[in-house]
Amino acid sequence: MGLHVFFFFVIMSTMSGAAKKKARTTGDDGVVLYSYWRSSCSWRVRIALALKGVDYEYVAVHLVKDGGEQLKETYAALNPMKEVPTLKVDGHTLTQSLSMIEYLDETRGGVALIPADPVTRARVRAVSETIAQGIQAVQNLRVLLKAMTLVPAEKKSETKMGWGLHWIQQGFVALERMLESTAGTYCVGDAVTMADLCLVPQVYNARRFKVDLSAFPIISRIDATLSALPAFVAAHPDQQPDAVVS
Amino acid sequence: MGLHVFFFFVIMSTMSGAAKKKARTTGDDGVVLYSYWRSSCSWRVRIALALKGVDYEYVAVHLVKDGGEQLKETYAALNPMKEVPTLKVDGHTLTQSLSMIEYLDETRGGVALIPADPVTRARVRAVSETIAQGIQAVQNLRVLLKAMTLVPAEKKSETKMGWGLHWIQQGFVALERMLESTAGTYCVGDAVTMADLCLVPQVYNARRFKVDLSAFPIISRIDATLSALPAFVAAHPDQQPDAVVS
Repeated sequence: MGLHVFFFFVIMSTMSGAAKKKARTTGDDGVVLYSYWRSSCSWRVRIALALKGVDYEYVAVHLVKDGGEQLKETYAALNPMKEVPTLKVDGHTLTQSLSMIEYLDETRGGVALIPADPVTRARVRAVSETIAQGIQAVQNLRVLLKAMTLVPAEKKSETKMGWGLHWIQQGFVALERMLESTAGTYCVGDAVTMADLCLVPQVYNARRFKVDLSAFPIISRIDATLSALPAFVAAHPDQQPDAVVS
Repeated sequence: MGLHVFFFFVIMSTMSGAAKKKARTTGDDGVVLYSYWRSSCSWRVRIALALKGVDYEYVAVHLVKDGGEQLKETYAALNPMKEVPTLKVDGHTLTQSLSMIEYLDETRGGVALIPADPVTRARVRAVSETIAQGIQAVQNLRVLLKAMTLVPAEKKSETKMGWGLHWIQQGFVALERMLESTAGTYCVGDAVTMADLCLVPQVYNARRFKVDLSAFPIISRIDATLSALPAFVAAHPDQQPDAVVS
């Protein structure tokens, strides 16, 4: 798999001048993340790994090339949903990003991504689920592609953008309202939690789909604060070995 | 709110002969569940409450009548995503079904819905997320209705059924494969967990969308076993005060 990353590194270096990025080497404890630079769910887990200080091998899975590398049987054997990310950790293969974050939080010290108090935990998980299940799950690539099959060729591009915009905008109206009662410096209070790991990739998608973020001042403020933190900088799509920087 | 349930009870009794159901009274600790009989996410939480032996007041929120009661401002003030369920518990208002289940598990004794071992917890959460985020979030009513807006009038009904069938069938292929390695009597091992609370409502939806369940023997077996348990019987849509039994 190291070869695989290396392959991507060479391609990316050659094609896009992204030579400043290098593939990460295998972590001391053999942690491997199968990731795609622009995948929101991969990005959440990259932030968690960075905040926890876990070194890991990055294996790029290209979601578009060759019809989608995640659809190949070798990858599906690891991840039956044929999605990124997949995390190999402590001898186990884990799927589903929020699950992975909870696992890392339960098994690794340092920053607590899920706080101790049950009510605060419920708030963190509710904000996370609102983004992961209420927004991202409906606007992601596989759903966009399916929605596009419902319309004639000349409407595909408009449908793609409209579908993404609709779900993110509608979701952000709800999210902004939730944050009015939960937010401090970050999504829930004044410490970084799992909810923040979900927020930043979703705001990035909002920009791609031309959501007017001025309507969401709390979301925008928290996103800006988070984006300056070192772990969030390191986990950004543009910093990944498979990034295509135009 | 008791009046609200009573109102539904009267309507349902009059309209559909569902007089055998009665509205639950307020629980000793003031737990209130805003629910819709056929909502998968409400159903998950009803099973959790039944397994934990928590008595609660049932407030029916009709997702279709009057364009959807969940869209009204009085309800949105409780639940910004304008979805069911909402849970009032211990003086707090919680949203998002998996969050609620984790909260109930952390604060109530009895059956452990999330087991103690971190790897098993990750498996339970991954199966739950696969259903909640990977399947249900994409085939639910609000997404179906949006998908139907993309096609001409004569194709709406076919699109509704096709969209639901597609996502459940594709998701069940992955889920069946996950269960091959995690299942015992139930989804993860031999104890009922949060994953099972997600499974049963999803299988019910699969039947509504005419998924061929014979292709999924593990899912079918576990669903049949779970469906006979008293907590699952009590939480079934047909047993709710707002059920419309034809």
